[in-house]
Amino acid sequence: MKELPHIVIVGAGFGGLEVARRLSKTAVRVTVIDCRNHHLFQPLLYQAATASVAPSEIAWPIRSLLRYANIITLLGTVVGVNTTDQEVLLDDGTSIRFDTLVLATGARHAYFGHDDWEPFAPGLKTIEDATSIRRQVLLAFEEAERTPDAAQRTKNLTFVIIGGGPTGVELAGTIAELARDTLRGDFRLFDTRKARVLLVEAGFRLLPGFRERLSDYALQALRGLGVEVRLGQPVSQCTSEGIEIGDQLVRASTILWAAGVAASPAAEWLHAAADRAGRILVQPDLTVPMHPNIFAIGDTSHLEMANGKLTPGIAPAAKQEGRYVAEAIKLRLRGEATLVPFRYKDVGTLATIGKRSAVVDFGWITLTGRLAWWLWGFAHIYFLIGLRHRLAVALSWLWIYLTGQRSARLITQDGMNREIEKATSKRTATNQ
Amino acid sequence: MKELPHIVIVGAGFGGLEVARRLSKTAVRVTVIDCRNHHLFQPLLYQAATASVAPSEIAWPIRSLLRYANIITLLGTVVGVNTTDQEVLLDDGTSIRFDTLVLATGARHAYFGHDDWEPFAPGLKTIEDATSIRRQVLLAFEEAERTPDAAQRTKNLTFVIIGGGPTGVELAGTIAELARDTLRGDFRLFDTRKARVLLVEAGFRLLPGFRERLSDYALQALRGLGVEVRLGQPVSQCTSEGIEIGDQLVRASTILWAAGVAASPAAEWLHAAADRAGRILVQPDLTVPMHPNIFAIGDTSHLEMANGKLTPGIAPAAKQEGRYVAEAIKLRLRGEATLVPFRYKDVGTLATIGKRSAVVDFGWITLTGRLAWWLWGFAHIYFLIGLRHRLAVALSWLWIYLTGQRSARLITQDGMNREIEKATSKRTATNQ
Repeated sequence: MKELPHIVIVGAGFGGLEVARRLSKTAVRVTVIDCRNHHLFQPLLYQAATASVAPSEIAWPIRSLLRYANIITLLGTVVGVNTTDQEVLLDDGTSIRFDTLVLATGARHAYFGHDDWEPFAPGLKTIEDATSIRRQVLLAFEEAERTPDAAQRTKNLTFVIIGGGPTGVELAGTIAELARDTLRGDFRLFDTRKARVLLVEAGFRLLPGFRERLSDYALQALRGLGVEVRLGQPVSQCTSEGIEIGDQLVRASTILWAAGVAASPAAEWLHAAADRAGRILVQPDLTVPMHPNIFAIGDTSHLEMANGKLTPGIAPAAKQEGRYVAEAIKLRLRGEATLVPFRYKDVGTLATIGKRSAVVDFGWITLTGRLAWWLWGFAHIYFLIGLRHRLAVALSWLWIYLTGQRSARLITQDGMNREIEKATSKRTATNQ
Repeated sequence: MKELPHIVIVGAGFGGLEVARRLSKTAVRVTVIDCRNHHLFQPLLYQAATASVAPSEIAWPIRSLLRYANIITLLGTVVGVNTTDQEVLLDDGTSIRFDTLVLATGARHAYFGHDDWEPFAPGLKTIEDATSIRRQVLLAFEEAERTPDAAQRTKNLTFVIIGGGPTGVELAGTIAELARDTLRGDFRLFDTRKARVLLVEAGFRLLPGFRERLSDYALQALRGLGVEVRLGQPVSQCTSEGIEIGDQLVRASTILWAAGVAASPAAEWLHAAADRAGRILVQPDLTVPMHPNIFAIGDTSHLEMANGKLTPGIAPAAKQEGRYVAEAIKLRLRGEATLVPFRYKDVGTLATIGKRSAVVDFGWITLTGRLAWWLWGFAHIYFLIGLRHRLAVALSWLWIYLTGQRSARLITQDGMNREIEKATSKRTATNQ
């Protein structure tokens, strides 16, 4: 197998996974490296964060998805690329040689230069983010039940989401439903419907990537769920007390960040030209300038579409790019070059608002309301991988739809608490 | 409502939950305090630890189970009891007065005076223990795929379980199946069937609480799964290298502790007489000596049965005791006293070995093999709470049974790694 070209793919998200799968029958050796053992279905991550699905329902062990003889999956963290020696460098000091490299390392959330806000306003990009947010949201209600201080209770029951794109809209709608439906009746000392959910957007409309009609619809739908939407109001401060919008302080114990992403460090590894968010400015054939055997796809790359807009950072775009790169690799094996530049085929965008409505923008047609929601549901279930997960998520949603009950409502301790637990308990033991 | 007697229940496991539910229609005020927000179905915890079910499938938010007008649920950690003032003391400095107190605080794992072994040999009592063990087991296979060092790989693929009671037997059988069925085909650089699973028991037979015939059956069944069982061999040392049995060092990167439990600190809070494991020596009516209005039930209490043996630390015993206490409280409200001492009605014990066999001991009849396994399955599903969880767990098991695939195979980062992640990534941001 040593003579086969070695394709190294860093990142097993939508883009990287697509490249790997399309090379499973090709005469190449493939190594997929990801710093996590699971592929995450990010479109539904906000549901894990709001206790609507369990994390395992939207994540798959990568190596189980890549059970092909020519593909090796490694759990590892890439920290650099040595282009002279054609190697990727891992955090344990080892390196892996490649003939072709595909960087599909995605994005993480970013704070517009206010990194000091991060401890108070976590973002939502990974499973750990989701369980952490879930914990914070559920704990806020628990603390409200315990505290005799009315001002503290109000603060606990105030939830702020910063950023009016799809993630922010989805989080706001679901937290509002959590408070109004799911948790109602679970608490004795206050009415969960008094919870206040604010969605704060610096721009002048929600869902800026959608057409205006849908932005308006989303605004009305959110208000119908009791969410307070503040448009044209950038946040000036985030602390443990809450947020400041202009002069106004809104006291909140839960602030969620859905307002900015930046690319992975891939551009730095290559010293490649990048945009303001760190995305590599790739050629029309998705290669990195001056490195014809290195591709960059997905959220970590920057490619303009025919209309001058950026190829969107959504799953379908990453998958299409992954497919394009796999085809390019196959062409090169035959001694041919890619003739056609990559062109993103817009398959529409969707966002959901609570469990009863959504907006769907297909370009030539738009849908809103309950029909859109069913479409959104089917599309997402379709794109999940495997019958097992489709059944599990369908069951979760059916249950929420019929009963309002969300069953993934675990609060799990974080690492620090457990250390304290261990330190303070020493017992003499006996046989079980 | 202030004139109603106030019953405070600490702990919402099987025992505490039973007391609360049986008082839901009684003319009392009930406050349930637990340091976690969820009730855990501990019999299936080993399945969460081996990626067979997701944590949320075996845990329920306590307050959702106690949606009764006279019951308040509080998330809080009790650190003491002031018997003079009749108050429980919480870790935030607040206190809650009670008229009757029920301590149902359960047990935690314990190390026979070798607390220094704990970092190397985690036990399995909480959801966090389960996800931590799951992470460790799955990571061991991941590291085996990455390491070029054959000795290191052997160490990664060696799993030691200490303790041959039901938990140890269940863990050993399931890890063996994980290696042989579920993960086979997922790795390229080694054969997962080479994984070595050792079950080490200091006593002379497995499942000491069952009759000998069943211990023998379990031994054969485990050997049939490829588990090496060492009987009569106490472990003398646990380190990051592995374990020592007598003179022999067994190098293993995963060591799991299933060999000892000790009670919660309840006995210390009350300065009550306790056994070697810290369990409160309760009166035949389950009250604490000299404190007729304080009950202690479940794993934190010590009560001998007619045959001189200890009432077992299993779910049916805790539930029966909870029921007894609820009835005692109702009698007292009518001005009557409990005439009958508590008597545990033995409903049998069960343990499962892998996905195809189990042992069931009903006393007058025993079952082994596949029939026992189906019975075990139905019993556990029956005792789960609620249709939603029954469906979810049934689906998980059906899937494993039919395909061998376990879908709850997430490795999630621990708290320390995330801090390092945050510290090393600062990005300029842009709009999403």
